[in-house]
Amino acid sequence: MTPRVAVLSTGGELMRGRGVDTHLGTLARALEPLGLEISFHATCGDDFARLVDEIKLAAARADVVIMTGGLGPTEDDLTRTAVEEAFHRPLRFRTDLWRAVQARFRRFHIPMAAINRRQGFLPEGAAAFPNPHGSAPGFSLAAEGVLFFALPGPPREMIPMLERRVLPRLARAFPRVPRFAIWEGRTVGLPEGTVDEIVAPVVRRVRGATYGTHVSPGYVGIRVRGRSAAVAARTAGLLRGALGRHLLDGASLEADVAALAAKRKVTLAVAESCTGGLVAHRLTEVPGISANLLEAVVAYSNAAKTARLGVSESLLRRHGAVSAEAAAAMAEGVARTAGADLGMSTTGIAGPTGAVPGKPVGLVHHAVHFRGRTRVERRVHPGARPQVKARAANLVLDMARMALMD
Amino acid sequence: MTPRVAVLSTGGELMRGRGVDTHLGTLARALEPLGLEISFHATCGDDFARLVDEIKLAAARADVVIMTGGLGPTEDDLTRTAVEEAFHRPLRFRTDLWRAVQARFRRFHIPMAAINRRQGFLPEGAAAFPNPHGSAPGFSLAAEGVLFFALPGPPREMIPMLERRVLPRLARAFPRVPRFAIWEGRTVGLPEGTVDEIVAPVVRRVRGATYGTHVSPGYVGIRVRGRSAAVAARTAGLLRGALGRHLLDGASLEADVAALAAKRKVTLAVAESCTGGLVAHRLTEVPGISANLLEAVVAYSNAAKTARLGVSESLLRRHGAVSAEAAAAMAEGVARTAGADLGMSTTGIAGPTGAVPGKPVGLVHHAVHFRGRTRVERRVHPGARPQVKARAANLVLDMARMALMD
Repeated sequence: MTPRVAVLSTGGELMRGRGVDTHLGTLARALEPLGLEISFHATCGDDFARLVDEIKLAAARADVVIMTGGLGPTEDDLTRTAVEEAFHRPLRFRTDLWRAVQARFRRFHIPMAAINRRQGFLPEGAAAFPNPHGSAPGFSLAAEGVLFFALPGPPREMIPMLERRVLPRLARAFPRVPRFAIWEGRTVGLPEGTVDEIVAPVVRRVRGATYGTHVSPGYVGIRVRGRSAAVAARTAGLLRGALGRHLLDGASLEADVAALAAKRKVTLAVAESCTGGLVAHRLTEVPGISANLLEAVVAYSNAAKTARLGVSESLLRRHGAVSAEAAAAMAEGVARTAGADLGMSTTGIAGPTGAVPGKPVGLVHHAVHFRGRTRVERRVHPGARPQVKARAANLVLDMARMALMD
Repeated sequence: MTPRVAVLSTGGELMRGRGVDTHLGTLARALEPLGLEISFHATCGDDFARLVDEIKLAAARADVVIMTGGLGPTEDDLTRTAVEEAFHRPLRFRTDLWRAVQARFRRFHIPMAAINRRQGFLPEGAAAFPNPHGSAPGFSLAAEGVLFFALPGPPREMIPMLERRVLPRLARAFPRVPRFAIWEGRTVGLPEGTVDEIVAPVVRRVRGATYGTHVSPGYVGIRVRGRSAAVAARTAGLLRGALGRHLLDGASLEADVAALAAKRKVTLAVAESCTGGLVAHRLTEVPGISANLLEAVVAYSNAAKTARLGVSESLLRRHGAVSAEAAAAMAEGVARTAGADLGMSTTGIAGPTGAVPGKPVGLVHHAVHFRGRTRVERRVHPGARPQVKARAANLVLDMARMALMD
């Protein structure tokens, strides 16, 4: 039978609305290839009696319990003593752990408080997990028919320990649970329902594959679960054919634009009005983009559009700054003045004010100029100012991606 | 006695790592002024028996149970039937609710599926909460000594229903629980420990006030809880004096820069190298900034720094593009070429590559030019590329804020 997994997130800050728990999702995605699902999840603050109760409840309902947080040196860090109490396993001082904690403080020349000695204690029978990214060691404990794990709260400490210690331990503990190979992809330019209509019949043709879709801003994600790596790879190949250009190669539109520009040795320039720097910001999140992105201009005012981009005053007078003509002239102008191969532009009304008759909030013209051709798209993006900016940036990045693929 | 509150978040996507639950934090912050704390929190997927168990467990441990999600029309939406089962309250068809659901579909001209009729059912004795932002009504139910609330999952539907229906109902139900007035502030430029050292003695002087600090990228937040509005206001006033310019007026550095620029009628221009558009993007998230922000230039290449900003080639040859001299020339140059009163600039090495001897990854020069003076700051920011960009943007925005305050 598939073991039941319970997750227990601890931390007073979570119960007081000072932080958001991301560990449940991290754990769920990490356990999926092992064929394990999370059945129970609770969050608990810094209350010793409640923490003991939650550990006992989780241990009573599940075969595997994964607990995060509460391993620091302060009085609020109750995990070690709560586990001692819940499983009746007295804490033992472990000289090896204590030496490792001391060595870490010495290495970083941090003065160590006396309370850090707490981090040298573990429940009897526990196996320690060294923590290369922090002072708190984690541990596992097999007790009362339950395989229990205690992991540190900070994600940069928790995730490596999960990957290097917990997942291999679970794989050894449950060798007969059917494993899965996961393939993930991201699509752009289609609503979730349409993605689903395309993906469903494809996955149905592959024996041993299932899938799910999920929406994140600008993207519809697809996650395929195959009974083997070959099944997942075959499904991915079929989906690439079915989704065509709607499927990204990389993790984001900007990563794809950067990769295509690098591969094809194309230089880029950006002229932004309503997106206000967001297109440039996203492109410059990609390491190495400086080899291809020459420059970007945020030209809010008509004067800037004329002086920086060479958009003619008469064009702006005739059509207005929010027009297909202005968008095209901005994309062409930034490519010309920057000496870039490809120019992209946005001009529109991000809101909440600025609407005029015939030009509502959310109206944006997007343009891409490449190899003598300029393509312009007009959209009225829904949502508040940040959403209008984000949707316009998505669309112009996608237009650049399409131009670079041709 | 203070009532115990349990929160139950439902949704298969949460248990599968396809979404992050933000409701626990939203509820915690909303309940705090009423003097209510969340004692228990569980997450549950789309499993009917487990959902019934979790509702019973929450009802057994707490006086108030707030459940989110599962009110939609599909088979996965189990909240109504699970509540029926857990509290032994049979579902009744409510003609008034059903009419409201139908009216909503008619108003938005959306074809309605037959399954939407489910949204017309509520457990016997429940009070319905209309949902102006979606089709799913919420409800409250007093049963078995528990005050139970069911709220929709989407935050834009949940939050208004929480504020308009749940909070007033709780205030009426628990009139004797001591209330709190909350004041929140954000500081910049100080580590959390230093903020704490400044805030602690100030709050200690005010009877009936407590506080907590919390870190978010670029800021240290302070949340003061006072026994009355007067106490919170008095504490806020004292903290303003003690923290001085480290305390923001508004919600973000960019909001403060925009407000100060508007108030003092100062026009702004931005020249970015390593921040790659992030400074402009953040400023243009603030509505109305177009009246003060004239333009921004992302000048990665030396050619762009010379052509767009008038930075002399000999300066770049002599000092390099990543230098205090280049930063100053960029800030002055963008102010001059844009015709703006204040110019700000960044130039540095965002990484992961690009380091040279004496110029490590993370090295950034930041400059602000205003009223004939140019101030430059040099820092080596820790972290990966996105963190270096974010920290550099924070610092230059703070330098602009300081200049505008003088």
